[in-house]
Amino acid sequence: MKQGLQGELAHHLAAYRPGWSLPRPFYRDAAIYRADIEQIWRRGWLFAGHSCELRNPGDWLTLQVDTDSIIVIRGEDGAVRALHNVCRHRGSQLVAPGRGSSKRIVCPYHQWTYDTGGALTFCRGMHEIDKSQFSLKKVHCETVEGLIFISLADPAPPFGPARELMAPFLRPQGFARAKVAKQVDYEIAANWKLVWENNRECFHCNVNHPQYIKANWDHYNADDTSADVKAAISRAVAHSEAKWASAGLAVSHRDTGMTQFPDAERGIWYSANRTALVEGWVSESMDGKQVSTLMGDYRDPDVGTVRARTLPNFWNHSSCDHGVSTLLLPAGPYKTLARVTWLVDEKALEGRDYQLDKLMPFWQLTSEQDWAICERQQRGVESSAYEPGPYSKYKEYNVDAFVRWYVKTLAAGASA
Amino acid sequence: MKQGLQGELAHHLAAYRPGWSLPRPFYRDAAIYRADIEQIWRRGWLFAGHSCELRNPGDWLTLQVDTDSIIVIRGEDGAVRALHNVCRHRGSQLVAPGRGSSKRIVCPYHQWTYDTGGALTFCRGMHEIDKSQFSLKKVHCETVEGLIFISLADPAPPFGPARELMAPFLRPQGFARAKVAKQVDYEIAANWKLVWENNRECFHCNVNHPQYIKANWDHYNADDTSADVKAAISRAVAHSEAKWASAGLAVSHRDTGMTQFPDAERGIWYSANRTALVEGWVSESMDGKQVSTLMGDYRDPDVGTVRARTLPNFWNHSSCDHGVSTLLLPAGPYKTLARVTWLVDEKALEGRDYQLDKLMPFWQLTSEQDWAICERQQRGVESSAYEPGPYSKYKEYNVDAFVRWYVKTLAAGASA
Amino acid sequence: MKQGLQGELAHHLAAYRPGWSLPRPFYRDAAIYRADIEQIWRRGWLFAGHSCELRNPGDWLTLQVDTDSIIVIRGEDGAVRALHNVCRHRGSQLVAPGRGSSKRIVCPYHQWTYDTGGALTFCRGMHEIDKSQFSLKKVHCETVEGLIFISLADPAPPFGPARELMAPFLRPQGFARAKVAKQVDYEIAANWKLVWENNRECFHCNVNHPQYIKANWDHYNADDTSADVKAAISRAVAHSEAKWASAGLAVSHRDTGMTQFPDAERGIWYSANRTALVEGWVSESMDGKQVSTLMGDYRDPDVGTVRARTLPNFWNHSSCDHGVSTLLLPAGPYKTLARVTWLVDEKALEGRDYQLDKLMPFWQLTSEQDWAICERQQRGVESSAYEPGPYSKYKEYNVDAFVRWYVKTLAAGASA
Repeated sequence: MKQGLQGELAHHLAAYRPGWSLPRPFYRDAAIYRADIEQIWRRGWLFAGHSCELRNPGDWLTLQVDTDSIIVIRGEDGAVRALHNVCRHRGSQLVAPGRGSSKRIVCPYHQWTYDTGGALTFCRGMHEIDKSQFSLKKVHCETVEGLIFISLADPAPPFGPARELMAPFLRPQGFARAKVAKQVDYEIAANWKLVWENNRECFHCNVNHPQYIKANWDHYNADDTSADVKAAISRAVAHSEAKWASAGLAVSHRDTGMTQFPDAERGIWYSANRTALVEGWVSESMDGKQVSTLMGDYRDPDVGTVRARTLPNFWNHSSCDHGVSTLLLPAGPYKTLARVTWLVDEKALEGRDYQLDKLMPFWQLTSEQDWAICERQQRGVESSAYEPGPYSKYKEYNVDAFVRWYVKTLAAGASA
Repeated sequence: MKQGLQGELAHHLAAYRPGWSLPRPFYRDAAIYRADIEQIWRRGWLFAGHSCELRNPGDWLTLQVDTDSIIVIRGEDGAVRALHNVCRHRGSQLVAPGRGSSKRIVCPYHQWTYDTGGALTFCRGMHEIDKSQFSLKKVHCETVEGLIFISLADPAPPFGPARELMAPFLRPQGFARAKVAKQVDYEIAANWKLVWENNRECFHCNVNHPQYIKANWDHYNADDTSADVKAAISRAVAHSEAKWASAGLAVSHRDTGMTQFPDAERGIWYSANRTALVEGWVSESMDGKQVSTLMGDYRDPDVGTVRARTLPNFWNHSSCDHGVSTLLLPAGPYKTLARVTWLVDEKALEGRDYQLDKLMPFWQLTSEQDWAICERQQRGVESSAYEPGPYSKYKEYNVDAFVRWYVKTLAAGASA
Repeated sequence: MKQGLQGELAHHLAAYRPGWSLPRPFYRDAAIYRADIEQIWRRGWLFAGHSCELRNPGDWLTLQVDTDSIIVIRGEDGAVRALHNVCRHRGSQLVAPGRGSSKRIVCPYHQWTYDTGGALTFCRGMHEIDKSQFSLKKVHCETVEGLIFISLADPAPPFGPARELMAPFLRPQGFARAKVAKQVDYEIAANWKLVWENNRECFHCNVNHPQYIKANWDHYNADDTSADVKAAISRAVAHSEAKWASAGLAVSHRDTGMTQFPDAERGIWYSANRTALVEGWVSESMDGKQVSTLMGDYRDPDVGTVRARTLPNFWNHSSCDHGVSTLLLPAGPYKTLARVTWLVDEKALEGRDYQLDKLMPFWQLTSEQDWAICERQQRGVESSAYEPGPYSKYKEYNVDAFVRWYVKTLAAGASA
């Protein structure tokens, strides 16, 4: 069957034309969906949540990746780890999907008991077994400045380069000292790649994101940046440089349009940058005004936004006062789950320091606008009349980059 | 895979015995359902709606055939056309399924813009492309006396013979000058062929359709037509001949039982005729009385019924005052969608000239009685105990004709 | 395809290790589910209901086994028979799933009519057919002391040994003179084998079944039976022997733990025994007190419990005053239907002799606790991290026996 899939994949990959959207089977075939899972989702690093969601020893949350439920848990030693949520006795799921806190993981079926590191500590009635052979299966887990990543791969690819690049941008945001203000789960009726393709361009922003374009410059591209816009950006960059260079908070993305990501040729699946907001805006909120107390190391609201993203399942936009993380999970050729999390400083109090109806709308509206677009595109690419279309060099360079990254990663995994 | 399917099809077709119902796989196998779609639904002419549903330039409706959404639109030149509802840029669905009106088709994603003929007229940011290469893909479209048909085939089979045969019957009914009084969508849990087999005999009418049999003669067959019935029909035919011969409105179906359709051997997938109603009935309504103003060219209610049907997805029964069209669409081996549309004269006003509760029950009840029968049959033919049973020569000749047409069309398509 | 399945089955069976739980594909693969249906469910004897559910000639109930609806009907001659619920004309389902009573089975489509033995007695309009060739297809049917079993196999395996073993235990319970007090249908999101594995051990009872363990000894095993428990059981057995030996009601299961079942090596798929209840309990009720009038031949409530079970779909626990039957049906790799039926003496009157809120909770709670466990285990064994775990020799010997029976039966069927 593997051979069959490889032959089929090779056939479909041969139909792919760089600079154009993917052939139809990539958005709908069950076999290609399985290949995506095996070659990309089970081989890369996946964002799993924020370390502030697991504040105390024993705190855990679960993540469902394909058929596998993963427990992400803070151990009694304070370290965050990831374990398969499967009892080594008869395979029962140990904890119910969601979140909780416990110093021991006890199987509800026959009470096999594991410590927070996954070691089997108790199993009544099983007199002959060597407990050391029945630890919970481990999943690779890394934390960078309050963001938790896991990998189901064995061995996992190196995480160091991602950490080195992202940490300087994430550190001042202080996610490790944040708290979750709100979390909303979505089910998007679209293939996960369409969600990324949508994320990788702001060509669609003018008409679809009336809030977003008030705060940002991304929708201006090399072919339509006016002298006025260019001057405004230059002023913002210079202002930031003057004010923040020494503090390491100066904007790193200095142009209109989106920063280039990913880098298919060099296999770069992570990136982060600091970006200026439109003059007069200090937060990605409906009116650009601050909507909570300052986060992390910030002492001044005028810091633009930090943006980070990792393939295949994470992006974050953070202003001086709040951050918004999006976590994706594939759930079939036509279905993607998205969890959007709003974070504020851990000391901020709802009602006093922030109101959800001020904090949430900017990204709630923008996210939901995007999911609607993706669902509509999914219905179109399912048609026998769909054929790949050309990407705009000026506006869709990152969509093209994503697709090239996808094709390369898939092909490499399949031949590995 | 195609070879595999052909081998499987050949195997199942070999088990088919003329005069008996189809072997079980034809009603439940996913592979045969796909063959039905490819060889029959994507090769024939499909009823898509009524021209009066698209009264003004820019008016459109959509039709979902398998994976494909089709836009049927009246152009600025007044002609009705059919276009694939898929943007040539990145494949987004252009219009949301349903109906609307617009002089331009604008993609909601990046605003690529097409005229009502499908030509790409605007695509900002795409500086290098040759717009003439990115028109919407066209679907064949023909209109006959107010009924719109499309074909996804390339080339499409000839439509002329169907038009020639049906036009004289449809013309006086005046569908092009009608309006939709009501449209009801159904989801039938049965294979589309069972819906047709049900449609092709009135053997089941006595017990299942108490309304229908009051108005019609179809349920009397060669083996059970009494002398009284025979005399009544002869009177009706003679009356009609005397009254309408010169106007072309005389009944063309002169016997009890159903007119023979389809003709598998000659590949005839269309038919139409005028049929007498029971004496004293002028409309297929609950009491036989007129339920709206006269349609089309009629100046007298005493015109019997016009009936037309085309395979694989259309039938219509029309009285002097209203017509009822049924449009089928397959939605899986076990699911068929049916849209039933009640039409009246375009000048008829609800409340004044017709009441829905008088207009609708006859065909609403009859249709829903049939869907219930089909769903029950589907549950039976799924059983491993089902085996083909014999058709009655007197009462099920048209079921047999349909099955023979199906088998022949499927086999021809598969070997093409 | 059969060859392919056999190869795949052989491959998965080779991975099975006696004494350990089954490899993952056995709990989730569609192909193995189909093999289970064909080799086990369509070859064995299936519990179908109680003869008291069909009290009068013409009374029927239906059972859905895979794709097949079966009518179990009491004939005009008083015998219970099983017939396929499929008209021999065009395959319509004859009776709607559920229960009813009729001296004739009339197809709703064209009124083909069968007698209660399945013979075609009427088919209008079918002038040439030989009615004797169109009887309803029969399903093997056996009754033992009020329990009805059917088999779809041809030929069916012998039922005699099961009858001989079970009858002496079932007879005094008097199911043939019982009535249904309540029936509850469940849909369990778990493979049918997990439901059986759960049924075959009481290792999970301590924590999961607080009611059940008050009444029973099963959860004490060879490794944890204290001297006190051992003494109590001995007393109960001696008491029963003294009181009931001559009446044939003495307990036959004389140890703690569960009686051994099934016997994979000898192909034993049926068993029954009488088991002592905890001292002071006369019924499996919330407080151990009688909850209805005595059933069957009993003249004294102190009779312990009768337990019977047959693979693949039946178990029953009966006290002096009521019996509870569980009937399983597979409905996909991840779905099992369970029907739990509470029976009381046919003369018992609700309100006077029993109250549902006293009669039902013991087994309703215990059953629902088990379904929740099975669903949680299903979610775990779907994980790629699941691998077979070891069974406890002391506590899970019957799970091991079930799995060995399953593997042997499946392999035998597949090579037959």
